[in-house]
Amino acid sequence: MRDFSKDHEQLSLNTATVRKQWRLDTIIDECARRDIRTISPWRDQIAAVGLDAIARQFRDSGIGLSGYCRGGFFPAADAAGLAAALEDNRRVIDEACMLAAPCVVLVVGALPGALEGAPAYTDIARARTEVRDGIAATLEYARTVGMPLAIEPLHPMQAAARACINTLEQALDLCDELDPQRTGMLGVAVDVYHVWWDPKLHAQIRRAGADRLLAYHVCDWLAQTRDLVNDRGMMGDGVVQLQAIRHEMEAAGYTGTCEIEIFSDYWWSRPGGEVLDTCIQRHRSVV
Amino acid sequence: MRDFSKDHEQLSLNTATVRKQWRLDTIIDECARRDIRTISPWRDQIAAVGLDAIARQFRDSGIGLSGYCRGGFFPAADAAGLAAALEDNRRVIDEACMLAAPCVVLVVGALPGALEGAPAYTDIARARTEVRDGIAATLEYARTVGMPLAIEPLHPMQAAARACINTLEQALDLCDELDPQRTGMLGVAVDVYHVWWDPKLHAQIRRAGADRLLAYHVCDWLAQTRDLVNDRGMMGDGVVQLQAIRHEMEAAGYTGTCEIEIFSDYWWSRPGGEVLDTCIQRHRSVV
Repeated sequence: MRDFSKDHEQLSLNTATVRKQWRLDTIIDECARRDIRTISPWRDQIAAVGLDAIARQFRDSGIGLSGYCRGGFFPAADAAGLAAALEDNRRVIDEACMLAAPCVVLVVGALPGALEGAPAYTDIARARTEVRDGIAATLEYARTVGMPLAIEPLHPMQAAARACINTLEQALDLCDELDPQRTGMLGVAVDVYHVWWDPKLHAQIRRAGADRLLAYHVCDWLAQTRDLVNDRGMMGDGVVQLQAIRHEMEAAGYTGTCEIEIFSDYWWSRPGGEVLDTCIQRHRSVV
Repeated sequence: MRDFSKDHEQLSLNTATVRKQWRLDTIIDECARRDIRTISPWRDQIAAVGLDAIARQFRDSGIGLSGYCRGGFFPAADAAGLAAALEDNRRVIDEACMLAAPCVVLVVGALPGALEGAPAYTDIARARTEVRDGIAATLEYARTVGMPLAIEPLHPMQAAARACINTLEQALDLCDELDPQRTGMLGVAVDVYHVWWDPKLHAQIRRAGADRLLAYHVCDWLAQTRDLVNDRGMMGDGVVQLQAIRHEMEAAGYTGTCEIEIFSDYWWSRPGGEVLDTCIQRHRSVV
């Protein structure tokens, strides 16, 4: 296993982690100051500054991307909605190309309208079919521009509102179905927050192998989690066996970054510099 | 599929549903008044009144049990803790026998101390081993008195604090390991709240079959769930496809009750009579 104790070369910052403290251009500057060389930006944060300006800032600073957040949300109440989602995903891929991202992370969506409290339907099997079809169509376009897609299985507590792909096994079944040749154009983003509990986690990481493991996200699961979305823990503050999981990832051939992604009302309330410095320290000591 | 629209013969009330409104003796009276003929009581609610008195009240009222809540919580920080858990589970089984319960429901436990925010260890694989060993030892005793054990897989969001068995597949793997002869002494409690999201749910219900399906619990998953424990929905208010799941249960041979179990700050704030009447109405219309 790679030694992270001496530096933070393999640390990537998912920009949601400090999204309440800073605009994206400031986040990039603050990362550069701390020698964080990789970032995974969110689309809405880029839109708030401007895609061209951010692309230029990335080039000028020499900072690279570990992924682009996010495509997905394929299910919809009707044909027009399904088509609009596909169109939007093509735009996401084009933006990822402009930013030279290594992959687009897919939060695939679930029951349309559930996030707003009014699901248009409740048939999760239908949502899963729409997700499969949406990924298939998007993958066709992604292949033409050479942009890999990383399916991120989300925690089962997000199955209604955000993503109806909820285990690594389910995501890999879909990869096998849609990309049986293992071209490297379709894989998974493994986020410990979503999958740490899974009794099949280690076996499925081995099954995935290097060509399907496109991203690795870390944070922690707090023993007394208070909120279904915004109560993630800083690495080391919870119960996730981070080193055991990273060991499995690397044994399976993963050589990419560890992307720190913390949605947390607590950490959003702290000064941004303190958050980044803590991320660097924990990356060295516990990731 | 059985027709529930004409009566509520197959309705069982899990007494947690109105635990903040009434003591258990009142709950039994209120159920009898409404012709609810089956109940699943919690151990702490029984202790608050007295086991002998409650056993007598059940006999006198002619009300039966669909299960006894609960055994489990096997993992512990040390050998003394493991032994104490086994001893406690033997007492639970004895109580279930006194009450003529058809099974003891097992909430198996997870990282010891996590429920209180201070896990003694974080190795979930160790907790799972302790759970397996705990069930094996408890099953030995349960066989001598003829009391079946129902493993309840809990939602993955409970994996740290309450139960490290989190899918029906995982529970059934354990049943196959510990009771390969399918004696009927070890099976599962299927609670839609915990398993509705699982892409393998229907296949695993079929796999379980009649002799492993010892209990069926219903409520609903609210699209905008606000709390990890106490925000369950009344049947029909959420996104769970209750009739499709019950259809699968019955196709697999399940002939028992539908036990309504709603942990909900909202429903605990309503008058108990309103809750029971709503349960009866929803049992007929949407379960």
